[in-house]
Amino acid sequence: MLLPHTTSIRVRYAETDQMGIVYYANYLVWMEVARVDFCRAIGFHYKDMELDDGVLLAVAESHCRYVSPARFDEEITITTTVPDVSRRFVSFNYEMTCEGRKVATGQTRHIYLSRQLRPMRLPDKYAALFGIP
Amino acid sequence: MLLPHTTSIRVRYAETDQMGIVYYANYLVWMEVARVDFCRAIGFHYKDMELDDGVLLAVAESHCRYVSPARFDEEITITTTVPDVSRRFVSFNYEMTCEGRKVATGQTRHIYLSRQLRPMRLPDKYAALFGIP
Amino acid sequence: MLLPHTTSIRVRYAETDQMGIVYYANYLVWMEVARVDFCRAIGFHYKDMELDDGVLLAVAESHCRYVSPARFDEEITITTTVPDVSRRFVSFNYEMTCEGRKVATGQTRHIYLSRQLRPMRLPDKYAALFGIP
Amino acid sequence: MLLPHTTSIRVRYAETDQMGIVYYANYLVWMEVARVDFCRAIGFHYKDMELDDGVLLAVAESHCRYVSPARFDEEITITTTVPDVSRRFVSFNYEMTCEGRKVATGQTRHIYLSRQLRPMRLPDKYAALFGIP
Repeated sequence: MLLPHTTSIRVRYAETDQMGIVYYANYLVWMEVARVDFCRAIGFHYKDMELDDGVLLAVAESHCRYVSPARFDEEITITTTVPDVSRRFVSFNYEMTCEGRKVATGQTRHIYLSRQLRPMRLPDKYAALFGIP
Repeated sequence: MLLPHTTSIRVRYAETDQMGIVYYANYLVWMEVARVDFCRAIGFHYKDMELDDGVLLAVAESHCRYVSPARFDEEITITTTVPDVSRRFVSFNYEMTCEGRKVATGQTRHIYLSRQLRPMRLPDKYAALFGIP
Repeated sequence: MLLPHTTSIRVRYAETDQMGIVYYANYLVWMEVARVDFCRAIGFHYKDMELDDGVLLAVAESHCRYVSPARFDEEITITTTVPDVSRRFVSFNYEMTCEGRKVATGQTRHIYLSRQLRPMRLPDKYAALFGIP
Repeated sequence: MLLPHTTSIRVRYAETDQMGIVYYANYLVWMEVARVDFCRAIGFHYKDMELDDGVLLAVAESHCRYVSPARFDEEITITTTVPDVSRRFVSFNYEMTCEGRKVATGQTRHIYLSRQLRPMRLPDKYAALFGIP
């Protein structure tokens, strides 16, 4: 059973646009930061999974619902959970808040790819960390 | 009845990541480029809608399905359609291909905001261009 | 006399490119993060300077020397100093290292702009914090 | 003797920040687009240089002087020249204008790296295209 993991990021000036709020694509970057952090929390470095074991976590689908705008210099809390994981794919849910205010919710779905970008099964080592029997 | 509009972009080096393919958040940037182009095609400059009329097209939701990786220097064709539009919101669909190969599909849903970032009804001038009776 | 200030950032996957290292423009984003942090350290929030006092720190010049590549997930330490500051402009120097290895050095030079993007003199309040007599 | 080459880009919404103008790091992205275009103009695809010949054009230094702000939807003309090139390095100059107004000037200096990111001499084929005897 995978526990939720919480990551904090501070909004960069670079991430805003002329609307004065965070540009919508940047929430997906935050999801990546939260996802990498989640992996660290359950026991592995995503970097090593790529480098040592040649397993890439390719995004098959992304979704984001923008609830209230995030602004420069705000501290965003991202709570990441894994609603679904198997040897073939993994999904992540993200809830982004700022001082209790809901900012956005996101989902990403991933498949595992080899270095040649071909689908592969998740190796035992990582399956165990994700709690796959 | 709004016709599909087609936009072309060439993949920038900046848009790739160490997987050797386009980073997943950048498809949302392409959707923005395609959307702005769509507006131009139906008769207005998105820039002017913001500047002259104080109407902002805020993203309420985004979705992307990544079908086959896009790579540096490829020319991506984005076909944009508007499946749904009213005085309160507008949706865009995007189909991204590269020389006939499907690369990704995306959707965004927007609401209209005033400069103070409060929801507003789409003014007549733009409603007419979007074909809203 | 302004003391050097140190900021830490962790390299995001989004910041890499297909060369497998950090894309060169992203170092300028890190400089911004370090700069905002520096302002916080000497006693003000850059956000408030913009919002409350209408002073924008516009970049007039940037320079970066790339010494050794930064990679995904590395922790980069940025040491920021202010070699030169007056009522008309301010310069920042940045030294970026990773576990003692020099990664890059950068400089930015800024002028102060009003909300209408016209040059202005730095108000007393901020001049004092920057140690301008 | 290498002729100047001209590239056009349209400012993306994503490239603006809350100052209402283009974020300073994005000019470096435009320089990359102009550089890749320059290579195409003198007879090769930068992509092929990397893929087929394993030559990477790594940035050793970048510089940008911001003259007047670029804004969303403006068309920026970038004139690229090569002031200096040898078997060891190459420099590019960029002049960015918008309808005759100077927007920015930039320089980048590059060395040639092998796939293992080690310095290498520029192969004959490319040396010829760059006009190196």
